[in-house]
Amino acid sequence: MGLFSKDIETMNDLFVHTLKDIYYAENQILKALPDMIEKATDTGLKQGFKSHLEETRNHVSRLEQVFKLHGVEVEGVDCPAIDGILEEADEIAGEVADKQVLDAALIAAAQAVEHYEMTRYGTLIAWAKQLGRNDCASLLEQNLKEEKAADTKLTTLAERGINAKAA
Amino acid sequence: MGLFSKDIETMNDLFVHTLKDIYYAENQILKALPDMIEKATDTGLKQGFKSHLEETRNHVSRLEQVFKLHGVEVEGVDCPAIDGILEEADEIAGEVADKQVLDAALIAAAQAVEHYEMTRYGTLIAWAKQLGRNDCASLLEQNLKEEKAADTKLTTLAERGINAKAA
Repeated sequence: MGLFSKDIETMNDLFVHTLKDIYYAENQILKALPDMIEKATDTGLKQGFKSHLEETRNHVSRLEQVFKLHGVEVEGVDCPAIDGILEEADEIAGEVADKQVLDAALIAAAQAVEHYEMTRYGTLIAWAKQLGRNDCASLLEQNLKEEKAADTKLTTLAERGINAKAA
Repeated sequence: MGLFSKDIETMNDLFVHTLKDIYYAENQILKALPDMIEKATDTGLKQGFKSHLEETRNHVSRLEQVFKLHGVEVEGVDCPAIDGILEEADEIAGEVADKQVLDAALIAAAQAVEHYEMTRYGTLIAWAKQLGRNDCASLLEQNLKEEKAADTKLTTLAERGINAKAA
């Protein structure tokens, strides 16, 4: 969120700013996922990342609908949080030698991404409702639901065997 | 996690690396909280951040116990994720003019921090168990429990009125 003056005066400004933040984040995730798909060894994990790439495209498109419904221009703002999370994911993936350990590290990295998105969507939904934008809240809830499901799927994959195989 | 060679070969290496990552993160949060306490306007929010500062000191101390139990040196590694999350929190706080909107922004920022910690502790607990370190898992579970409670408290504060007052 890289502005340098006190540009946020109202809850509406804060809502729009955070919408731009998650829009930037979803687009960065879109760019990062193909590399995670390539690095994943476990078939279920690879497939899970592929499905999530499709879902992420839908998230971007739903966010664009929210911008339009709310009457503001579709744009992103720098989001150091997701940049840091993805940078860390990339670094850790580069440090792991064993393929099964790498799968465990990729799951952990992806869950950090999911949790960032879950917290931002949770916040945005609460603010949208307070601003009387139930239409926006409803679209954001669809994204949140899919992020939560993706996180649960990753936990299942981790528990079902990737970590165990690697240990 | 700033290494440059493939230093992580086993699940144990990955566990220790991620332990160092959250240790660094908790220490960065310790440094960031006093500023958030100072900026918060709502009495409940200010008090909540103060309690969490105390809890965070305990988290650091429990992590030091985990290092010792596991027989590794207590140390942190750079964690671009928490650096990014805290940088974003600081930036957004600097951009908000209205005090009540600032409280809403601080809650959102703190929840992003909590979610990062929750995902890392969730991962560490699963790995500790797979490595047969139930003693470590138990300490990490205490930290996770308190992070989840802090997140729930922030949601309650947000819903109970800070966002509503600001809207």
